[in-house]
Amino acid sequence: MAKYVYFFGGGRADGGKDQKMLLGGKGAGLAEMTNIGIPVPPGFTISTEVCRYYYKNQEYPEGLNDEVETAIEKLEVIMGKEFGSTENPLLVSVRSGAPISMPGMMDTILNLGLNNETIRGLIKEMGDERAPYDAYRRFIQMFGSVVLKIKFKKFEEILQKKKDKNGVRYDTELSADDLKELIREYKNLVHKENREIPEDPREQLWMAVNVVFNSWNNKRAIEYRRLHKISDDLGTGVNVQAMVFGNVGPSSGTGVAFTRNPSTGEHKLYGEYLINAQGEDVVAGIRTPTPISELHYQMPEIYDEFSKIAKKLEEHYRDIQDIEFTIENKKLYILQTRSGKRTPTASVKVAFDMVQEGLITKDEALISVDPEKIKVLLHPQIDPNIKIKEDAKGLPASPGVAVGKIVFTPDDAVEFANKGEKVILVRDETSPDDIHGMAVSSGILTARGGMTSHAAVVARGMGKPCVCGCDAIKPDEEKKELLIGEKRLTENDTITIDGTTGNVYLASVPFITPKISKELELLLSWADEKRSLGVRANADDPESAKKAREFGAEGIGLCRTEHMFFGENRLPIMQEMIMADDEDKRKEALNKLLPFQRDDFIGIFKEMDNLPVTIRLLDPPLHEFLPRKEDLLIELTRLKTEGKNEKRQNEIERILHKLTILSEANPMLGHRGCRLGIVFPEISEMQTRAILEAACILAKEGRKPVPEIMVPLVGIAQEFDNQKKIIDETAKKVFSEQGIRVEYKVGTMIEVPRASLTANKIAENAEFFSFGTNDLTQTAFGFSRDDAERKFIPKYLADRLLKENPFEVLDQEGVGELVRMGVERGRKTRPDLKIGICGEHGGEPSSIKFCHDAGLDYVSCSPYRVPIARLASAQAVIKIKKETAE
Amino acid sequence: MAKYVYFFGGGRADGGKDQKMLLGGKGAGLAEMTNIGIPVPPGFTISTEVCRYYYKNQEYPEGLNDEVETAIEKLEVIMGKEFGSTENPLLVSVRSGAPISMPGMMDTILNLGLNNETIRGLIKEMGDERAPYDAYRRFIQMFGSVVLKIKFKKFEEILQKKKDKNGVRYDTELSADDLKELIREYKNLVHKENREIPEDPREQLWMAVNVVFNSWNNKRAIEYRRLHKISDDLGTGVNVQAMVFGNVGPSSGTGVAFTRNPSTGEHKLYGEYLINAQGEDVVAGIRTPTPISELHYQMPEIYDEFSKIAKKLEEHYRDIQDIEFTIENKKLYILQTRSGKRTPTASVKVAFDMVQEGLITKDEALISVDPEKIKVLLHPQIDPNIKIKEDAKGLPASPGVAVGKIVFTPDDAVEFANKGEKVILVRDETSPDDIHGMAVSSGILTARGGMTSHAAVVARGMGKPCVCGCDAIKPDEEKKELLIGEKRLTENDTITIDGTTGNVYLASVPFITPKISKELELLLSWADEKRSLGVRANADDPESAKKAREFGAEGIGLCRTEHMFFGENRLPIMQEMIMADDEDKRKEALNKLLPFQRDDFIGIFKEMDNLPVTIRLLDPPLHEFLPRKEDLLIELTRLKTEGKNEKRQNEIERILHKLTILSEANPMLGHRGCRLGIVFPEISEMQTRAILEAACILAKEGRKPVPEIMVPLVGIAQEFDNQKKIIDETAKKVFSEQGIRVEYKVGTMIEVPRASLTANKIAENAEFFSFGTNDLTQTAFGFSRDDAERKFIPKYLADRLLKENPFEVLDQEGVGELVRMGVERGRKTRPDLKIGICGEHGGEPSSIKFCHDAGLDYVSCSPYRVPIARLASAQAVIKIKKETAE
Repeated sequence: MAKYVYFFGGGRADGGKDQKMLLGGKGAGLAEMTNIGIPVPPGFTISTEVCRYYYKNQEYPEGLNDEVETAIEKLEVIMGKEFGSTENPLLVSVRSGAPISMPGMMDTILNLGLNNETIRGLIKEMGDERAPYDAYRRFIQMFGSVVLKIKFKKFEEILQKKKDKNGVRYDTELSADDLKELIREYKNLVHKENREIPEDPREQLWMAVNVVFNSWNNKRAIEYRRLHKISDDLGTGVNVQAMVFGNVGPSSGTGVAFTRNPSTGEHKLYGEYLINAQGEDVVAGIRTPTPISELHYQMPEIYDEFSKIAKKLEEHYRDIQDIEFTIENKKLYILQTRSGKRTPTASVKVAFDMVQEGLITKDEALISVDPEKIKVLLHPQIDPNIKIKEDAKGLPASPGVAVGKIVFTPDDAVEFANKGEKVILVRDETSPDDIHGMAVSSGILTARGGMTSHAAVVARGMGKPCVCGCDAIKPDEEKKELLIGEKRLTENDTITIDGTTGNVYLASVPFITPKISKELELLLSWADEKRSLGVRANADDPESAKKAREFGAEGIGLCRTEHMFFGENRLPIMQEMIMADDEDKRKEALNKLLPFQRDDFIGIFKEMDNLPVTIRLLDPPLHEFLPRKEDLLIELTRLKTEGKNEKRQNEIERILHKLTILSEANPMLGHRGCRLGIVFPEISEMQTRAILEAACILAKEGRKPVPEIMVPLVGIAQEFDNQKKIIDETAKKVFSEQGIRVEYKVGTMIEVPRASLTANKIAENAEFFSFGTNDLTQTAFGFSRDDAERKFIPKYLADRLLKENPFEVLDQEGVGELVRMGVERGRKTRPDLKIGICGEHGGEPSSIKFCHDAGLDYVSCSPYRVPIARLASAQAVIKIKKETAE
Repeated sequence: MAKYVYFFGGGRADGGKDQKMLLGGKGAGLAEMTNIGIPVPPGFTISTEVCRYYYKNQEYPEGLNDEVETAIEKLEVIMGKEFGSTENPLLVSVRSGAPISMPGMMDTILNLGLNNETIRGLIKEMGDERAPYDAYRRFIQMFGSVVLKIKFKKFEEILQKKKDKNGVRYDTELSADDLKELIREYKNLVHKENREIPEDPREQLWMAVNVVFNSWNNKRAIEYRRLHKISDDLGTGVNVQAMVFGNVGPSSGTGVAFTRNPSTGEHKLYGEYLINAQGEDVVAGIRTPTPISELHYQMPEIYDEFSKIAKKLEEHYRDIQDIEFTIENKKLYILQTRSGKRTPTASVKVAFDMVQEGLITKDEALISVDPEKIKVLLHPQIDPNIKIKEDAKGLPASPGVAVGKIVFTPDDAVEFANKGEKVILVRDETSPDDIHGMAVSSGILTARGGMTSHAAVVARGMGKPCVCGCDAIKPDEEKKELLIGEKRLTENDTITIDGTTGNVYLASVPFITPKISKELELLLSWADEKRSLGVRANADDPESAKKAREFGAEGIGLCRTEHMFFGENRLPIMQEMIMADDEDKRKEALNKLLPFQRDDFIGIFKEMDNLPVTIRLLDPPLHEFLPRKEDLLIELTRLKTEGKNEKRQNEIERILHKLTILSEANPMLGHRGCRLGIVFPEISEMQTRAILEAACILAKEGRKPVPEIMVPLVGIAQEFDNQKKIIDETAKKVFSEQGIRVEYKVGTMIEVPRASLTANKIAENAEFFSFGTNDLTQTAFGFSRDDAERKFIPKYLADRLLKENPFEVLDQEGVGELVRMGVERGRKTRPDLKIGICGEHGGEPSSIKFCHDAGLDYVSCSPYRVPIARLASAQAVIKIKKETAE
């Protein structure tokens, strides 16, 4: 037979902690606590099943009423009270409780059971008038607003008037008579609004139950679930529990405490309480609560009892607990316990400490820390003690905080930086021409462009904070001013950008640069023991490589080489190469670039000595290295209209002509990746030469560089073969010139669907694969990331056409299938094929789990994400173990 | 034991016609003819296996020499002559012969076996001096140039001097003494070049065999194979055959004839011959040959014998034959027979006639016609009798020929057209602003843009000839002149464009508009009986729909609606819609567009009464409907610099602002397709309304419109579901308003890889699929068609990284797998799912075969390709039957 109501009380409960799905978190917790002998006010839980039934059928299941009646009777027996009695009336609270906590989102009714008759019983019972009348007026206010939907403000206005009239500030200062008057006025309000509070407590109860179930689908609850990715189908339970009162005199009180400090993780009770108050008073913040340590002095026995209970609960749940309690006339009741929300710092410390205390296993410790959260332990962050509202919001393109003076051009950035100033480069959007300015800036802020815009990619590569696509700002390069709404800033103003959140502040905001704690370091070392996935970093220069190695990277999974073509000394040569009309001139320019790139690689190999460095050959289309067409057009039209500077006009026309030839309808799908190296083999040749000459030079010094050359954007096996031939032939030449051989591998990125589909053929000659899931997501969905994230993905997420942004969390259904297919087909040809991922998903925990499941050898992510990836990889192993066991 | 040499002669041959791969086409033909009693000079074939062995091992297989010796002995016996004899010397020809004919690409040596001694034997045998000396001097010239690599020109110079000295024009006018002198001079030349012609005939033979094998990999042969997609691995055979002489007097001769007229298909011998000549004289074109019909009068018995042989060969091979013959002293020899190359017209007529004659089956007739070739039977074409070189070449973007005066702007096009002039609109590239001009032009020529550029797509939709991306032309809109190299044309000059070939002529070139012949019509009706694939057309307006139905289309597989937003009356409203800041204003504009679209659909449904019309909802990104940013920028800069027209400046700034918001990094992967309808549901609603109101109106008139509404660019099942809901809800409203119901289907395009991967989910609600293989190719490869075809696909084809342009021929390995996957997964969910293809591949024969194999229900292609598709679909059935049988 179906069971809908679960009783708890008298030392026994129908349910237990494993029934969160059925009873909700709160209900399961109350049941569990009852079972283990915690003093919980008795009550019962109407299951989430009823909620789902209610939404499906618009009525309650048969038998529910009888079960509720039986539960009430049981409750009356245990409490020695009676629902609706004028002698010793039973009062109850009615609260929601979903399987996943949604704090404050749904409705609650307290003090239910009061009416014109039962109030008299309560007065008799309590031997006092004030507390009962206070309870009654609170009930009317709550029932009136929550159940009868009368505006809460209207009650508040009446209350405020009453306080004003009596010249008092706090509710507690109102006398019993004042409260009686207030109750009359409240009832008048309800009457005037054409509503009615039923006298029958049972009627009150069912109305309250209805309203709690209905609140599952109120607007803010739906929004909360959307934001926290909670299924709409779970439903909530309803908890009906005997009321206990913290507001019946100085021996009563109420409070909330954590078993450990949720901010630092320190192993010490942390919380606060109020004497002579109900729970809502603590939350409302009208009175200032007392720290829990004070209870030790105020009510030593209660403190002692509470400490023991706290310890018991923590040991029972093996996690930090967040406990609500009430003291009614020196008797302690526990109203709720739940896993304590904590800061990342605390999370790590608690996990570590609990292992030391023998409370949990290393596996449990590893699982208990959210990898995403430890991000803030690595990057500079706004001082969490500072409360300040951001002035504008953009995309969090590259994490970290930067404070500096505004500059509007890269040249200004260099000039200011040379004077020792910290600057933030503010641009409409950046272009390759801006690189030298970006390099000297503390951070970058742009008005346009998405998470893969030039600014974002370069900033992430440089490890600099960056906020992109902040459309509230209007930088004017000519006037050197920045408009944000009504505000106008100029070059000497200081701003702060937070690339972790996307926030922009028009002031200098204090920030802190956390250090990796000893606890985190050890936790990560446990993760390293556990994980089977390798973790590498995406790093393009020696500094990032160094940082990555410090963070525990086991090599570089993606070293982009395009940035090696930028820089003051290099860009002009690169442009010379692009403007060249024949192969000879192109080769001449490339020869000039060779020594620069070789030095870059020497620097990187040194930092990554003995570890593999996967170097991707030139990837972006060549026009990215030329000035912007729009700028040239404007300059040309101006010169023409004014009839000025014919020489410059000709020059611009020449560049424009080249730009027209190079311009592309869809650069993302255009002449880039290996397509460049195929049409201009001399580029691949030069890059291979730079890589292997660098490796040979170091090898002669006794170092051990491990180069892996990666051909980008292969979709046809022949493309790869073509490039591999160039690489191998160049290698042969270099080795013979240098008189030394260095081991190297040649592999490819899998970043277009056709590469996955034909992985068996590509693997015939490719020695490794690296999934470029950014581009693979773009091509599998047919989404241009820059455009999609700006134009329609927000709408898709809001309307739940997508559950996650596929550029942040790997789409396992579609893109994931291409990854699995690529792995399977690649390994069919070459069983020992080494396979990694170097898209941004390589640092995202759920995607890392997927990579583990799909049989990848390693993930590669930005240096700051390496610790996250180490932890997430370990979690993947633990979760699999658990899934398999189940 | 291995066998390398295949003898033919004396009425028996070792090989036969099915051994083309082993013996080459010529060798197999000679063997076959020998076997069926055709008078072929005897000889032997060294197999292609030897060629492959030779290339692999750089030497000949063991035993080859012995086999050749045995064959020579046999030949000597049959001919009653002896190799190297001074009495009756055996002379042979040494010719290449590959499995697939490569005419003129490889080397040939004739008259081999002659030297200072054997020449005397030949003189004795022939009883004449002139012919032997002529043969000897030809041999030296051929061996010297082909085998010894002495420049052919040097021999020709000596010959010319000799003729000049003797005051004669033709070789035949040189006397035996002249030839003797010539031979001496030739030998001096060879000596001077430090080469030597061996006296030993066997040495001559082996040198000649070597040179033929080597010629398999000469530059022109490689290039020919690349162009004709012939594998490099096949290799060639070498045919050594007893020489017969057509140049030994007036009773000798040589010629070539077809069993039917290869130009018209008429059933009558067609060819020509020369009396007293060798084969090369016919080819060389120095003397004018006589039509074969004359032979009837000149040598009636020979003519009679030849006619009988021709008939026998045609009946034997069941195909039109191209026969080479030689008459030596009134004896007829057949030197070669092969399938006759013919014009498309002839191809159709011959196939049809041969079925009537009972020579071949209908299946064979259908297979014998190349579907691609019948294209020219449908479109206007340059008069094939005109020999004229093109002045420039672009991409063949939309087939057909157009002649007209140049205009540079759409407004001029309208003005000229109103005066009754035929015009060609010449533009850098076209934009939506140009539509009204394109509509009145006879053809379109652009300097930029690829096969999917705006001009190309619109022109194909309109069925107008178009040449795109012709970068040799420089149109100057302001000066109204067109530069092609040094030439400068203006508005009144006439040009001709051929959209079938991409040719541009700076003159009026005569062209013809073929009619569909009765034979073709009947052939296509046989195809219809045979095929199981449906054939629909891509058509966007009533005219195209009508044309498509005439060509046999069984409905419309793709009706694009974006062109319905263009047009003088519509574009301003569309722009109003785009510039609207809120939904209400957008809806207002859409309401104004509704009647236009409804009328469009009424027109199309009328033409396609009773047949399905698949209508795709709006697909392109909205910015395509606004003016071009560059133009606006130039105008604005000019106005600003001059300080003029502030009102227009503001207006431009407003549009520029919108363009900035709408602009996309990669429009192909941007805010288009169903993403538009999801963000702006009112667009889908208006279009559905227009479609279904049109259908209801016609249904009330007793017609039977069959609308199928197609949601574009779906990659996530939820996208489709979102749009289907809007469509179904709108349908309900329309039917209730109109008081009538019309059956309609809602389906989707499968054009991004993720759609194929998740086809099972999409098919839950989608009632049909249509593969958009253009976009699927773009996303699977990560190729932007416009960019790829311009930038690197030509290089890929040249270097054989790709065998075919995947935008022309469906990539069966990659894209094809996505199609198969989509079909399989879609039908798993919905077994009766109707599936078609509407990418341009739907009209390409090998892709049609693939669609048949993959289990599609229909293909859809441009109206002019419908007959091609009908034929190709029938061929697919026949080929499958054949493959299964094998």
